[in-house]
Amino acid sequence: MQPIPTLAWTGCSLRLLDQRRLPGLETYIDCADVPTLAEAIRTLAVRGAPAIGIAAAFGAVIAAMTAPEGVGFLGGATGGLDLLASTRPTAVNLFHCLDLQREVLRSHPDRGSAVRALLANARRLMEEDLDASRAMGRHGADLLPPDATVLTHCNAGGLATAGLGTALAVIYEGWERGRIRRVFADETRPLLQGARLTAWELSRAGIPVSVLPDSAAASLLRSGAVHAVIVGADRIAANGDTANKVGTYPLALAAREHGVPFFVAAPLSTFDPDTPGGEEMVIEQRDRSELATCGGTLSLPAAAGCWNPAFDVTPASLITAVVCETGVASPPGRESLSVLTLRAGTRKL
Amino acid sequence: MQPIPTLAWTGCSLRLLDQRRLPGLETYIDCADVPTLAEAIRTLAVRGAPAIGIAAAFGAVIAAMTAPEGVGFLGGATGGLDLLASTRPTAVNLFHCLDLQREVLRSHPDRGSAVRALLANARRLMEEDLDASRAMGRHGADLLPPDATVLTHCNAGGLATAGLGTALAVIYEGWERGRIRRVFADETRPLLQGARLTAWELSRAGIPVSVLPDSAAASLLRSGAVHAVIVGADRIAANGDTANKVGTYPLALAAREHGVPFFVAAPLSTFDPDTPGGEEMVIEQRDRSELATCGGTLSLPAAAGCWNPAFDVTPASLITAVVCETGVASPPGRESLSVLTLRAGTRKL
Repeated sequence: MQPIPTLAWTGCSLRLLDQRRLPGLETYIDCADVPTLAEAIRTLAVRGAPAIGIAAAFGAVIAAMTAPEGVGFLGGATGGLDLLASTRPTAVNLFHCLDLQREVLRSHPDRGSAVRALLANARRLMEEDLDASRAMGRHGADLLPPDATVLTHCNAGGLATAGLGTALAVIYEGWERGRIRRVFADETRPLLQGARLTAWELSRAGIPVSVLPDSAAASLLRSGAVHAVIVGADRIAANGDTANKVGTYPLALAAREHGVPFFVAAPLSTFDPDTPGGEEMVIEQRDRSELATCGGTLSLPAAAGCWNPAFDVTPASLITAVVCETGVASPPGRESLSVLTLRAGTRKL
Repeated sequence: MQPIPTLAWTGCSLRLLDQRRLPGLETYIDCADVPTLAEAIRTLAVRGAPAIGIAAAFGAVIAAMTAPEGVGFLGGATGGLDLLASTRPTAVNLFHCLDLQREVLRSHPDRGSAVRALLANARRLMEEDLDASRAMGRHGADLLPPDATVLTHCNAGGLATAGLGTALAVIYEGWERGRIRRVFADETRPLLQGARLTAWELSRAGIPVSVLPDSAAASLLRSGAVHAVIVGADRIAANGDTANKVGTYPLALAAREHGVPFFVAAPLSTFDPDTPGGEEMVIEQRDRSELATCGGTLSLPAAAGCWNPAFDVTPASLITAVVCETGVASPPGRESLSVLTLRAGTRKL
């Protein structure tokens, strides 16, 4: 599988595939200043927890490049990082990557060396993400039954990461091994990432994909046509409770009802051991405009209110296994997830 | 509550509020021939099980009016009824009303008397529907806890019936009695009947309504903000299994998970004692185009397939009560539903 050109460093800017315009148009945005990148993250030109983290890591490079030299440097660059941190509240990867860059910044007080060190670090994070995708693919594909039809939600693909994805990395690997026959993708309202992005990615890779309304997934699971559900994650709490795109929780309820295994694939950067459980997670509320029009057509009368959470929390008890780059936690819980984290530590020593 | 002008007989045509253009535009279509009406039903200019039934009953009048006089009359008129019967396969009200009109047609071989008798019958069905709405409202509102926040799906309102609705008749009555504080409405992909129609109807009646993506309903139910779910039905099998707009079944699963009562409101014309259970129901598959664009924007790549069922089946075991014009079946089952049907028979004697 060739990675998807979700984000690329041009030497002086971060080039993003504009995901708002897919599948109709394949266009790119060059972000050469922090406000442009922050706006791209906020408006979902780039989205997906790992991709946001890496975009922000390159954003730190841009913040350093565009900060004044001399005494104002640290303040200027830090201001850029703060702006990036304010874009989206739920995915932990964003904060994780920015914290790593803040450390780099503190040990490099002059602009030239800071830019070099930040860039090296951003490139390392991107490489690690690609490696993590491949490893998740291998671990996850081992869990699939032969000749499987799988269902996924939102886009946890190359478009959500540095290039191969989380849930879709498992699907790509499963497809290459001949273990996957067909994929169903929830369209994923309100922004239709499943229809627009997942179906685009999988079709591009020659994998048969059918899109369904989110609300049809429960009857599809009841029909027996699906052998496994596999989704990504935006944050995994210490106890295994998982925040992911809204609609994941009802999918997990329906999967349990019909005895279909429910897998979460996410890199260790998504793990948040400081958050004990789902109750403690901040769930981002998105703007009314996402629900109020569909295409250009008015779909909500002016007098109506709206409730538009970006994510929901799936309790660990509904998750068959969490797959990450160091292995599989099944069932996911405080202990099994710690083992996966510890493995990474051991490996890095 | 004033009924909504969903359908009206003008003397020579059936005037339909064009629901495809709401909430942006309030426009009407005059159907003076059967193909125009059939197309209006098929493309959801008029929709909702009871409204489709009544529209078809008036369609039978139009079929008789536009059939040739003399020997070709019965064949011509019957052809019109057959065309109407072919428009949508799941809602039983359509077939129920057309069967009643076929009987009328058989006993009135000449055009003039047939038109008069068919029109009287269509008017009676419309009146009965309005009475049934009011009775459902009373029975259903008795079940609501005081100061309730309720969640509904799709549009089971005045727009889905001759004027007051099924689930929304309960909400209107609950609101008038001061038992309802607020309504949440699933937007209901792919055609957004919840956002476009339910929110329009309720706002018009001054009832506070908030719209949410279908996939957010499970987390809303988990939050404890909702005290009852109330939906309509397109067909209720003998054992209480209920076909309704796709997305009803996952809602019922989430309601059970969080101990929220789940009510179905539907007139007796929706009951189908000849169908033993949900397994035997035909579920209409809708066109790819409903998922492939959103407003005018492409949302599905050409290579992707789609699965777009119009309805799903909620097993009786997940339904707290079925409310109809003759009372409440709780829990719904073969026996409790028969009692409701028998009551209607007794009343008519």
